[in-house]
Amino acid sequence: MIGGDAAGMSAASQARRLKGPDELEIVAFERGHFSSFSACGIPYWVGGDVGDRDQLIARTPEEHRARGIDLRMRTEVTEIDVAGGRVRARDVDSGAESWTSYDKLVIGTGARPIRPELPGVDAPGVHGVQTLDDGQALLDTLARTRGRRAVVVGAGYIGVEMAEALINRGYEVTVVNRGREPMSTLDPDMGRMVHEAMQGLGITMVNGAEVTKVLTGDDGRVRAVATEDAEFPADVVVLGIGVRPETALAKAAGLPIGTHGGLLTDLGMRVRGHENIWAGGDCVEVLDLVSGQQRHIPLGTHANKHGQVIGTNAGGGYATFPGVVGTAVSKVCDLEIARTGLREKDALRAGLRFVTVTIESTSRAGYYPGASPMTVKMLAERRTGRLLGVQIVGREGAGKRVDVAAVALTAGMTVERMTALDLGYAPPFSPVWDPVLVAARKAARAVERQA
Amino acid sequence: MIGGDAAGMSAASQARRLKGPDELEIVAFERGHFSSFSACGIPYWVGGDVGDRDQLIARTPEEHRARGIDLRMRTEVTEIDVAGGRVRARDVDSGAESWTSYDKLVIGTGARPIRPELPGVDAPGVHGVQTLDDGQALLDTLARTRGRRAVVVGAGYIGVEMAEALINRGYEVTVVNRGREPMSTLDPDMGRMVHEAMQGLGITMVNGAEVTKVLTGDDGRVRAVATEDAEFPADVVVLGIGVRPETALAKAAGLPIGTHGGLLTDLGMRVRGHENIWAGGDCVEVLDLVSGQQRHIPLGTHANKHGQVIGTNAGGGYATFPGVVGTAVSKVCDLEIARTGLREKDALRAGLRFVTVTIESTSRAGYYPGASPMTVKMLAERRTGRLLGVQIVGREGAGKRVDVAAVALTAGMTVERMTALDLGYAPPFSPVWDPVLVAARKAARAVERQA
Repeated sequence: MIGGDAAGMSAASQARRLKGPDELEIVAFERGHFSSFSACGIPYWVGGDVGDRDQLIARTPEEHRARGIDLRMRTEVTEIDVAGGRVRARDVDSGAESWTSYDKLVIGTGARPIRPELPGVDAPGVHGVQTLDDGQALLDTLARTRGRRAVVVGAGYIGVEMAEALINRGYEVTVVNRGREPMSTLDPDMGRMVHEAMQGLGITMVNGAEVTKVLTGDDGRVRAVATEDAEFPADVVVLGIGVRPETALAKAAGLPIGTHGGLLTDLGMRVRGHENIWAGGDCVEVLDLVSGQQRHIPLGTHANKHGQVIGTNAGGGYATFPGVVGTAVSKVCDLEIARTGLREKDALRAGLRFVTVTIESTSRAGYYPGASPMTVKMLAERRTGRLLGVQIVGREGAGKRVDVAAVALTAGMTVERMTALDLGYAPPFSPVWDPVLVAARKAARAVERQA
Repeated sequence: MIGGDAAGMSAASQARRLKGPDELEIVAFERGHFSSFSACGIPYWVGGDVGDRDQLIARTPEEHRARGIDLRMRTEVTEIDVAGGRVRARDVDSGAESWTSYDKLVIGTGARPIRPELPGVDAPGVHGVQTLDDGQALLDTLARTRGRRAVVVGAGYIGVEMAEALINRGYEVTVVNRGREPMSTLDPDMGRMVHEAMQGLGITMVNGAEVTKVLTGDDGRVRAVATEDAEFPADVVVLGIGVRPETALAKAAGLPIGTHGGLLTDLGMRVRGHENIWAGGDCVEVLDLVSGQQRHIPLGTHANKHGQVIGTNAGGGYATFPGVVGTAVSKVCDLEIARTGLREKDALRAGLRFVTVTIESTSRAGYYPGASPMTVKMLAERRTGRLLGVQIVGREGAGKRVDVAAVALTAGMTVERMTALDLGYAPPFSPVWDPVLVAARKAARAVERQA
């Protein structure tokens, strides 16, 4: 196993479940200090919702070893020799290198954060948030910093979650975002709602602005972030610009890489053309079941599923990962944001014609206390009426409603069929027509008119 | 339209949307005082979560009339003359009767509460909770009653919701329940969890106990409820024993009635064998898509969907109601209870062989604040692995998770396919494996072992 995080260690654990140490020797290499940690939890640790770093560690190296997995920490694989069936690994601390041969190889090298080539970007006080070490460094900076001004660069999932974390820590937060609206995984009209809601939370939103420079003070620490038009004072800067698949090793070994930079696998997560090499997690591309195209979606829940499938197959069983529909959910304070399937531009790119509808509804029966407004946007294919995508922005109870659409997408359901879905109803849980059903009704009528 | 509640008035509204007053005259008869009200909301009005009765009225008679629907309140249909294409209606107050002819007829007569034939059951202080008048009468009793002891008879949805309402009003609540465990719509092992949780809320649960008598005091008012073994002092008694389809009128007219006492319709909600008569809501039986059998499921969300389909068809359009999968969700204080599909005994009755699994998980990532435990039970068919049913008992975030299973059931998905469902994941919303996926994984393994 190359990589001791979600995909690799899930694969290791599942393979171990199927085959005992007498049948299968498992060696895992991890270059970092931690195994099996929840990167998705870092914003909540930084924000103070999670008190202790160790809560984010699902399983320690010792726990893995107790299960018969030879996990070698601080050991970086530097070369894959596919023809020779071996990998070269280097002890990060001593620099010592050695070759280890394999019958079966699992690649779970993850992703690496995009770090823009900006003057000053390496100044103290500028932080990424991909690893537990990153999180600790940021927390150390927050503890040391006297000022209370934070700039978050990027307004995707990491960006908005870090905005919440810094608000919770008492910072004045400015989000500088290249896109027209935050959350470019939504259509701009829904992004606009996130924009307004974030402003309502006291966050300063700067959209359509490219960071050109990080400015430092006399002490060498960050003091501001500059765009072409303005400067934003900052005592701390968080980079939340996203990640790219970490596939340099695989590429050097001649393994197949897709247009998004991720490894290409078959449905059993086997690297294409290689009988005994699997790959999973943030370093692979996945099939988008709605558009039929490959995508790169770094997300812990996929990595865990990949690991489960790989471990089953490498352990002599049979399992597949059929693909994704592109579901994601996030929150900024009490604002919940969710999406699944295709945005308008994805649908256009996939060659689809479609109708879009947007409806307003509530999380509970209108008369029930705590009913909060929610907006649901739905895309359906013309003529067929097949559901193509759903985006939801609302408050409590909005986010996980996207799961209904995720399952309907997986099943290839039409919006007309969705109108009759038997979803749970009681006044504390839903209006008599669940918001997703209200959207489906409107979409079905739009499909009918356009047919 | 016979009946001015959810099914009838939804049908009327939808038909009116498709056909203007010049094309279609719509007359609706309602024997009660209210139109289009939320019976499901009554427990929350009684409990004080909903301040005002009028909040439960979705649309008043005046609002219906303003939309060109001739809604005649306090007017009871006493006979359907199918051959003559007319109905006889009686003004409830004056007793005056007259015939009205129809080209198209919609029956939405609803359900009537089961009121056991018990000595003392009509004593003051004993209440049903089906109508707004019932709710008002109960509230009047609560306002007048000095004692604080309440007995709820029945532990289904109405029973447990009324237990919460009375707790919220400061009553000591005893629930007397004929079944082995509360919530007979769950399997007993899951009902047991509800039982224990309700006791934890301070509710006295008396299971396996049949009420034999309502005892009254010198003032003629209720003073206790008696079972064969014991007496339970009561200042107020609420009957929550369920309902039966109200189909006397339809039966007298020779319309087809099923084994559960409900009208039988085709998929367009047309009464079987009758080209120009539709029926919907609590007075009809519906097709259970999982078992392939007819069921009676009185629930506002179905009634609204039926009305929508009927109104579309009666208005010259085309729509169908394909059936239900038996989803229901409820809560008692912070305990959430949900189910969809078949219980073990339903599956046996339908001739299915199956595996069952039960798992414990949490509503959010374990390290995220507010993560609450939840138990998910899942049934899957042997050999095929098709999902058959899901039951969930937990706290916040448990109930609506059943919707994922409801859609999967509708799509005929296997539990193996469910393990790869792309459900929304972020630490505040779900563990990295959503509880439904954890159950699906365990169920898939059980199917494999039994194959």
